[in-house]
Amino acid sequence: MRLRNKPWAVKLVNDHPEAVIQDPDPAKKINWEERVADFSRPLEVEIGSGKGQFITTLAKRHPERNYVAIELQTTAAGIILRTKLEEELDNLQILRADAINLADFFDADSIDILYLNFSDPWPKTRHEKRRLTYKSFLKNYQTTLKPEGHLEFKTDNSGLFSYSLVSINNFGAKFDFVSVDLHHEDEEILKNNVETEYEHKFASKGNPIYCLHARFN
Amino acid sequence: MRLRNKPWAVKLVNDHPEAVIQDPDPAKKINWEERVADFSRPLEVEIGSGKGQFITTLAKRHPERNYVAIELQTTAAGIILRTKLEEELDNLQILRADAINLADFFDADSIDILYLNFSDPWPKTRHEKRRLTYKSFLKNYQTTLKPEGHLEFKTDNSGLFSYSLVSINNFGAKFDFVSVDLHHEDEEILKNNVETEYEHKFASKGNPIYCLHARFN
Ligand SMILES: C[S@@+](CC[C@H](N)C(=O)[O-])C[C@H]1O[C@@H](n2cnc3c(N)ncnc32)[C@H](O)[C@@H]1O
Ligand SMILES: C[S@@+](CC[C@H](N)C(=O)[O-])C[C@H]1O[C@@H](n2cnc3c(N)ncnc32)[C@H](O)[C@@H]1O
Repeated sequence: MRLRNKPWAVKLVNDHPEAVIQDPDPAKKINWEERVADFSRPLEVEIGSGKGQFITTLAKRHPERNYVAIELQTTAAGIILRTKLEEELDNLQILRADAINLADFFDADSIDILYLNFSDPWPKTRHEKRRLTYKSFLKNYQTTLKPEGHLEFKTDNSGLFSYSLVSINNFGAKFDFVSVDLHHEDEEILKNNVETEYEHKFASKGNPIYCLHARFN
Repeated sequence: MRLRNKPWAVKLVNDHPEAVIQDPDPAKKINWEERVADFSRPLEVEIGSGKGQFITTLAKRHPERNYVAIELQTTAAGIILRTKLEEELDNLQILRADAINLADFFDADSIDILYLNFSDPWPKTRHEKRRLTYKSFLKNYQTTLKPEGHLEFKTDNSGLFSYSLVSINNFGAKFDFVSVDLHHEDEEILKNNVETEYEHKFASKGNPIYCLHARFN
């Protein structure tokens, strides 16, 4: 998803350095302690949040947890920020950066849940290394997740999902949950599902939604 | 699939002990050497062959390999046998038995490829142990497959496929190939796919076909 550049969003992001970190220097650690009220709370991170429907819903539902939305595009970051400010989500921080540098942004063993939602599929084989479930990304997930932490991945893209099942299995991760048709699972599972923008759009068209939860340790 | 009992099929099976082994005594090894022309050829086994479209197509295409169809129902075994006799498939044997005893039927490290096609889904949790991808079955696949051998599994049942991905991953097997939409893969993959009766029926209705190849060693 490439959003059209929105000047108001760029300005909002620049006006709120206390809420949005932009392209942090990989050599310097981010001081999360001084950015959130209580950094000892569980930490959940979404990579590629888009307009942020998923992570802002979670942040509102769980004030006792901390959330970080990582997003490449400034316009998307601005849209997430607007929601954060309107809904006073003090437990949500925004990182406007490339998730390839995840292990520079977070300490080892610091994240409870990592979310990948409807990540760009990069269908061409020559772009395999850009997929967020390529092994170099998985290495960073393994490093930054707590030993008891896990990854939650959703997509409607059959090629990316098939690829990711092989990649994550071959990396040695253990699957906790798989669904190749999430929206037709039991009520028990559905009631805990928080929809993303893409999920809403593609499920409305009747596409199956795929889901995987995996542990790296 | 429960087939209506066909007396001709039962009679045919009983008349051909050289082609069909019925409920073998688990205490006695099956003497495969004396049943096929050259037992040193690669060995491929399908569990739950139904009417046998898949395994008879393979046996015809690959006279240089040996095939065994394992099937519970005598009527289904009779239908496979009829094709075997008509097409003179000397490299195909039929085992009318419950695959739960697989490790009694075959030596350790003796099978090159094990096929599970559209296995009964047993959707109720209390029937989990009957699913052909439950861990006790996987143990037998690991034992009987050669170290370089592998499992090939196809189904249209989303619940069974989701379950099997978790079960086979947790067992420690490595995935070589996954597709959550086999019939929309590249030509390269499709041209090697041999359809089963169930596959033909469900794909014609537009259901996605799921596929997994995994190694146990
Ligand atoms: C297809 S959109 C999905 C948005 C949202 N997660 C949803 O499900 O509706 C993918 C988003 O990931 C962002 N993205 C892609 N690669 C990224 C990376 N390496 N680091 C951070 N964000 C990334 C894109 O800018 C885009 O907003
Ligand atoms: C749903 S049918 C699929 C038939 C065929 N593989 C196809 O794809 O068209 C499943 C078959 O597996 C057989 N079967 C189920 N459990 C079995 C077991 N434990 N051992 C041997 N055969 C079994 C059933 O009798 C039935 O014929």
